[in-house]
Amino acid sequence: MSLYLHDIPLSQAQEAFASALQAAGLDGVLASEELPLSEALVGRVLSDAVWAKLSSPHYHASGMDGFAVQASATQPASATQPAYLQVPSQAEYVDTGDPLPLWANAVIPIEQVEPLTDGVTQAENPRRPAQIRIRASLPPWRNVRPLGEDMVATQLVLPAGHRIRPIDLGALAGSGQTSVWVACRPRVAVLPTGTELKPIGVPLQAGDIIEYNSLILAGQVNQWGGVAQRFPITPDNFEQICQQVLTAAQDSDLVLLNAGSSAGAEDFSARVVQALGALWVHGVAVRPGHPVILGMIHLPSRQVPIIGVPGYPVSAALTAEIFVEPWLARWQGCLPAEPLQVTAQLTRKTTSHAGDDDYVRVLVGRVGENLLAAPLQRGAGVISSLVQADGLVLIPAGVPGLPAGSAVQVQLYRTPAELERTIFCIGSHDVLLDLLAQFLARRQRRLVSVNAGSQAGLLALQRGEAHLAPSHLLDPLTGEYNRAYLPRYAKLDCVLLTLVERAQGLLVQAGNPLRLNSLADLARQEVRFVNRQRGAGTRVLLDYHLAQLGLTSEQVNGYEQEEYTHLAVAAAVASGRADVGLGIPAAAQALQLDFVPLYHERYDLVIPTHFYHSELLRPLRETLHTPEFRAAVQKLPGYAIEQMGKEQA
Amino acid sequence: MSLYLHDIPLSQAQEAFASALQAAGLDGVLASEELPLSEALVGRVLSDAVWAKLSSPHYHASGMDGFAVQASATQPASATQPAYLQVPSQAEYVDTGDPLPLWANAVIPIEQVEPLTDGVTQAENPRRPAQIRIRASLPPWRNVRPLGEDMVATQLVLPAGHRIRPIDLGALAGSGQTSVWVACRPRVAVLPTGTELKPIGVPLQAGDIIEYNSLILAGQVNQWGGVAQRFPITPDNFEQICQQVLTAAQDSDLVLLNAGSSAGAEDFSARVVQALGALWVHGVAVRPGHPVILGMIHLPSRQVPIIGVPGYPVSAALTAEIFVEPWLARWQGCLPAEPLQVTAQLTRKTTSHAGDDDYVRVLVGRVGENLLAAPLQRGAGVISSLVQADGLVLIPAGVPGLPAGSAVQVQLYRTPAELERTIFCIGSHDVLLDLLAQFLARRQRRLVSVNAGSQAGLLALQRGEAHLAPSHLLDPLTGEYNRAYLPRYAKLDCVLLTLVERAQGLLVQAGNPLRLNSLADLARQEVRFVNRQRGAGTRVLLDYHLAQLGLTSEQVNGYEQEEYTHLAVAAAVASGRADVGLGIPAAAQALQLDFVPLYHERYDLVIPTHFYHSELLRPLRETLHTPEFRAAVQKLPGYAIEQMGKEQA
Repeated sequence: MSLYLHDIPLSQAQEAFASALQAAGLDGVLASEELPLSEALVGRVLSDAVWAKLSSPHYHASGMDGFAVQASATQPASATQPAYLQVPSQAEYVDTGDPLPLWANAVIPIEQVEPLTDGVTQAENPRRPAQIRIRASLPPWRNVRPLGEDMVATQLVLPAGHRIRPIDLGALAGSGQTSVWVACRPRVAVLPTGTELKPIGVPLQAGDIIEYNSLILAGQVNQWGGVAQRFPITPDNFEQICQQVLTAAQDSDLVLLNAGSSAGAEDFSARVVQALGALWVHGVAVRPGHPVILGMIHLPSRQVPIIGVPGYPVSAALTAEIFVEPWLARWQGCLPAEPLQVTAQLTRKTTSHAGDDDYVRVLVGRVGENLLAAPLQRGAGVISSLVQADGLVLIPAGVPGLPAGSAVQVQLYRTPAELERTIFCIGSHDVLLDLLAQFLARRQRRLVSVNAGSQAGLLALQRGEAHLAPSHLLDPLTGEYNRAYLPRYAKLDCVLLTLVERAQGLLVQAGNPLRLNSLADLARQEVRFVNRQRGAGTRVLLDYHLAQLGLTSEQVNGYEQEEYTHLAVAAAVASGRADVGLGIPAAAQALQLDFVPLYHERYDLVIPTHFYHSELLRPLRETLHTPEFRAAVQKLPGYAIEQMGKEQA
Repeated sequence: MSLYLHDIPLSQAQEAFASALQAAGLDGVLASEELPLSEALVGRVLSDAVWAKLSSPHYHASGMDGFAVQASATQPASATQPAYLQVPSQAEYVDTGDPLPLWANAVIPIEQVEPLTDGVTQAENPRRPAQIRIRASLPPWRNVRPLGEDMVATQLVLPAGHRIRPIDLGALAGSGQTSVWVACRPRVAVLPTGTELKPIGVPLQAGDIIEYNSLILAGQVNQWGGVAQRFPITPDNFEQICQQVLTAAQDSDLVLLNAGSSAGAEDFSARVVQALGALWVHGVAVRPGHPVILGMIHLPSRQVPIIGVPGYPVSAALTAEIFVEPWLARWQGCLPAEPLQVTAQLTRKTTSHAGDDDYVRVLVGRVGENLLAAPLQRGAGVISSLVQADGLVLIPAGVPGLPAGSAVQVQLYRTPAELERTIFCIGSHDVLLDLLAQFLARRQRRLVSVNAGSQAGLLALQRGEAHLAPSHLLDPLTGEYNRAYLPRYAKLDCVLLTLVERAQGLLVQAGNPLRLNSLADLARQEVRFVNRQRGAGTRVLLDYHLAQLGLTSEQVNGYEQEEYTHLAVAAAVASGRADVGLGIPAAAQALQLDFVPLYHERYDLVIPTHFYHSELLRPLRETLHTPEFRAAVQKLPGYAIEQMGKEQA
């Protein structure tokens, strides 16, 4: 086995898979079954066209509650010259849906009839008078649903390949079907492999990985109309994996072999596929996802396609979207899903592996006139990037990257309506933003936060890329927050809406073993610091106070080590990568660190005036004044809410 | 009980229902349950926000297969001056995902390492050398996934109200959850009532109606996240319906009482609701659907909302969309569905009940630059109109109608991608169009036909409202088909692509009891004829041959009775409404009528030249030349295929 993969282009891989499946006779509906009409058919795909067995209605039906008549008998009637019809010889009461008497060809609605007993007196039961008086004529077949009005026997009710919706069940039943032929749901075996994998709920050691890819893959398969079967974890052992694959293939139309698809020391998937059948593709030039395997297991009686799915969760999910979904559709006789596409403007420069089709996860929201796509973290292991993603942008092979402001096609995971009620927030990070998002969700707003630091947020406002920027930039000259930075960065008329005042201080290991009590302690040689990125308010605060103390950045060991959020700084300390960072107490609490309070600062939401007064942001303005939100904030350590919701002069 | 309904505006009805449910404490999540993580959670809605219990990764993990090192130890290395690191003291092999040794803070990918045994010789096992040679330095934490890179303990994983997708299952598991709290699926009882209703599969008499609304409603409820329970049919009996409603309410969060919601002789629903609780609304000014009932059943222990759903299937389905879906969403803690909206151009004048919100079903397709909305049949009993619909247009109360060409908002049932591959066909009707639609569906084209007659089709081409118009218009002067009509109606450069030649003749009752053998027989006094509409090719044919015989329309009894399709003419004859019509043999066969052949005619697809050569229509052009389609046509009576696919000069 080669130690490295040789990626081939995506289209080439898809063609290789398609022609191999075609050769094996596996490129159409795999099997179909006749099922009785029931609500469980919703989502199933018709394998045969359905033609009407009955006409509907199957008789001439009254379309109204009223009196069935011969239209010609009503001809003399007018507003001034009423006509009288005898019941039941000339007029017969019918409810909606009742069959018309053979002699009748029209129905007078009961509201347009005067029911009489003797030509003058009102009848007691309006539906059983002796005669009726009418004051208008009507043409033949008025208020009648003639035989076949809806469907005529032999006409096409629904075509093959149609995915059944609830309303279709009515049409199928109405056309005389009691059952229909539908494509069988393709059976897909999902096989997690890896000695390092642990089932959900088992206590973890370093190096253990929670096995959840099989959950994702099974969920996808079921959503796409297949039936997933999840197998237990198989350790990295060639023989055991072979055995499990053979077992799984027996009752499956497709096997998904998860992980081990690369070319590492314990990557057995390619060898397993080669041993049990044919390996067509090992490596596809697509990111995330490139160590993909496409092959076939040869059973004595039949062939079963197998896909080696990479281990990183983002790669696994996207590999399934690219390679599994289209085939599940085809095996059911319908077209692959067609995600909605919109054109959006990329918020920042995005590089790409030039040789690969590169799928970039993006947040999408409308800011003023612009629909924006903000790229998320790229790591294939960062599942939260796919959870948060509003869509995917494909940077095709051959394109080394795209500059900020590029118009890109976004394949949407959300509805356009959701995008229209999205509040785009770029700037400083605070855990309160998560809490605020929760409260806004109840008021039909989606708060999407990009953690970029205070300065970057103000710059994003200037470029029209955000509705608001959380910021806590201290002006060294005045000791005031944010106001002084607006002309330099935001360059817009903005409101400073205070979210909170909060403590900043040292995040240290539990018990504070190094006894760090002031900023001056950062200059101690043995102390390893972890910093925030340039432009972050916390970095500005640090630099300001270091200068006050007469310290330089060179004197702080780890000054150049940067993180983008408070929680990331806390995680660095918690893991022992650093001894101390500057940050907020909520982050310390999150990672069970100790907190040494040093400063207080104001944390504002900087909002361009035209957005501030918009309907989109109204729920946000209101939420800051609700007792529920204030109470929730006060449950967290280190926040003061006196100024919450105040517009700073 | 009043005999008639008093419809109130839709918004008023919705508000009445909302405030009554609020008063009963039923306007939020009804109940929630804790469920273990499994693929079955997909589609369920989180009732509580989920915060990370674990960081992910929960240790510093290698991001590559390679050697873990101290970044500082690599500093001396350069392309010209390699550095040597001893294994395992200075470099240790790690697979992707392995924990980093405590002393290491970076990983060199295995591809960038020369594994050696003694400073010169290549090691046999590249993963277990004695030392490695490297030719580049790397910064700290390169190729490492630090603790918390994906998620940090305590951070928000997913908000309450989020509908779980497959990828979310991974994030939930990765953040240390083994179970989550989700909203219980609302339980909805579906009660069909009506003495005229018969279960699917039972032989039918005139007046019997197949009960399928409960199938539609149950399918909708399940699709919207509820759990439907279908009850057996209850006859129109006040006591029995009361009993069934009480039984159903016991285990339900909502009761749907189907039909009997109007004010006819056997409409008990309103009285039942009044007897068992409170009736808030009886009649809503919305079409289709106005006899809607909104009320509450009072059980000893709790209150259960009840909706009286009208009996016509289109009304029933739309009533559920309007009144049931938003509440099922609310009871699950999420927002109602937000169907995609597009702006389209109405193809014809559409009237509306001025007092009602009027939902018009439309076909939607793109013809050239125009996105078009063609209204479908309006009858609430015509379920096929909802099955065929691509979307809904709301004509609000107060608007008496809209002229042709109006820009309307369409609430889409299909994806925009489906609309882009739709071929819009307006004109003469032939059952072959259904067959053609079947064949085109396999080639990713959707053929949508509006039966309007030959002349109307050509006019539609002129207005840019169709890609093609099936036509069989005989020119009385030349005996030629279609060509002569183009300058007058289509006014465009068109190709005449022959679909087929077909017989036209008399459709008569089986056995031809009136012995009708020629067109001249239509003038016999006792013979009742059914005609096609003005502008239909068959009507032109009739008029031409009547003139040849020296007969006038006044001599034909029923000449003024018009139908829009061959099948409708056949249905009129089959039902006894008429004795004879002029039409095609396939229609006679469909309704088991006899056919008396009289004429042969050419049936062309008239296609504007610019559409004829388009990629959209390519599959149509090709299909006419396939043996499969030709064989399928020849199985039907009365068609000759010699000219199929020929472009007429």
